[in-house]
Amino acid sequence: MQGQNNTNKSMEKNNSLKKETIKRVISAFIVAPFVVFCFVSYPSLVGLVATIVMISSGEFFFVTLKKHDPWLSIIYTALVTTYPVLYGIAFRSNPMELLAVVFMVGAIFALSRVKNKEIITEVYFAYSVALIYISFLLSFFIPLYDKHGAAIALLTLTLSWSYDSFAYAFGMTMGKHKFGSYYSPNKSWEGFYGGVFGTFVYILIYQFVANSVFKSHMHIDLLLALILAFVTGIFDTFGDIFESSIKRHYGVKHMGNLMPGHGGMLDRIDGLLFMTPVVYTVLNLFY
Amino acid sequence: MQGQNNTNKSMEKNNSLKKETIKRVISAFIVAPFVVFCFVSYPSLVGLVATIVMISSGEFFFVTLKKHDPWLSIIYTALVTTYPVLYGIAFRSNPMELLAVVFMVGAIFALSRVKNKEIITEVYFAYSVALIYISFLLSFFIPLYDKHGAAIALLTLTLSWSYDSFAYAFGMTMGKHKFGSYYSPNKSWEGFYGGVFGTFVYILIYQFVANSVFKSHMHIDLLLALILAFVTGIFDTFGDIFESSIKRHYGVKHMGNLMPGHGGMLDRIDGLLFMTPVVYTVLNLFY
Repeated sequence: MQGQNNTNKSMEKNNSLKKETIKRVISAFIVAPFVVFCFVSYPSLVGLVATIVMISSGEFFFVTLKKHDPWLSIIYTALVTTYPVLYGIAFRSNPMELLAVVFMVGAIFALSRVKNKEIITEVYFAYSVALIYISFLLSFFIPLYDKHGAAIALLTLTLSWSYDSFAYAFGMTMGKHKFGSYYSPNKSWEGFYGGVFGTFVYILIYQFVANSVFKSHMHIDLLLALILAFVTGIFDTFGDIFESSIKRHYGVKHMGNLMPGHGGMLDRIDGLLFMTPVVYTVLNLFY
Repeated sequence: MQGQNNTNKSMEKNNSLKKETIKRVISAFIVAPFVVFCFVSYPSLVGLVATIVMISSGEFFFVTLKKHDPWLSIIYTALVTTYPVLYGIAFRSNPMELLAVVFMVGAIFALSRVKNKEIITEVYFAYSVALIYISFLLSFFIPLYDKHGAAIALLTLTLSWSYDSFAYAFGMTMGKHKFGSYYSPNKSWEGFYGGVFGTFVYILIYQFVANSVFKSHMHIDLLLALILAFVTGIFDTFGDIFESSIKRHYGVKHMGNLMPGHGGMLDRIDGLLFMTPVVYTVLNLFY
């Protein structure tokens, strides 16, 4: 009886997992074409980056500043979004000054709005982490596109999709040896290596298709493909754990509920945020 | 009797204030020559910036992360200091990538070291604020020196000294109309305008001496001098209030005790941090 109960429970769990995975795949296939389409031109890429920053920082502020005046979250979402917008349009050669000014404006806004010394540091935490982790890191897509073109920028985005999918598939089916991460206890070495291997193969296929079908001139050799796959695996994982640690602090499972099966926008791009600047740097050095 | 008591108390207060002011002036005149001397060459300027970042971020971490493992403060002080060092030596053309990597390394270090979801956001707060507010903002001296030379870089530093001194003197003697700032209740409009006026005069004298004695070729006109004086006043004040808000949260009067009469290094440079990137931007636009 006890045994049968357990079997039933485990079947139920399996079923709900399957349903969740199907939801995940369907919603990914609905959203993906719109995202990919934005890589057609520089202005649409800037718009895409700004939109993603706006949605995910909005989710972030509504979780981290939930107890505070909602205007603070709204103004901060807008402020953090000005960085990719102005960077893409007017400050391509001096983003540093822009970042400094956006940071200071946010700090001054907090000083004028939050007159409570107990909670002011929590506001600074939310603002500075959203500005760096979300806005500053994702905006590396702008120089990446500028310097290396659409094919490489789209590859960078899909590297993260590829790694996430393969790591999920390998981890779910074969994951036994856990990392032992405190904030993300379910991650396993099997998932990591499966993700890196799948991403390596993905890069080669992407390049083959881009060069033969779309007449690109990509020339990523096997060593660089391997480096990119490892960099993706390592930084995607850390980006993911970083976001998890913040979610755990605030006691939420997801930052939002935008895409069924994925959680919020920020849950979707958490790994991408850490990965993009490193991929950009690796490409600048070796490509 | 009551009246006499009050007079005595107020005389005592006046005396201790005088003593404090004398201490302030003496310790400033001892430290200033060493600081000014570092403006003689680019490498010594980088060394100066790195040293100031190290001391003030050390003070900052020992206050904000007092409850935590001291190794966290030590490693974070070192990490935050690598930014100006590597920026000045090897990353003059790509500080953005450097900043992203330093941020991520600090985040990953926190994840591996702090296994407590209650306090992890406080660690992120301390690290990201120290990295942006102290390290990133002060490092604007590096491109400032690179682009505009020693005379302008030294002017920028002493603008803050000049504003602080004049605002202090005018505020102490004539300050009646307070800003009404919650975190820094003693600041007055008389201090602000006195500081701006004194700084405006200081810029003209500095330029006259630099051009006639040191054969510089500075050409700051009256309008630019006025803009610089106002920018200094506004951002120096906000930088100061920003630091005050953090000190109030942690219940400390000073961040450290390095210079008698001044408090710690960070208390000395708090306004300079907000001011430098804006002065740099104004000079890039109008000079």
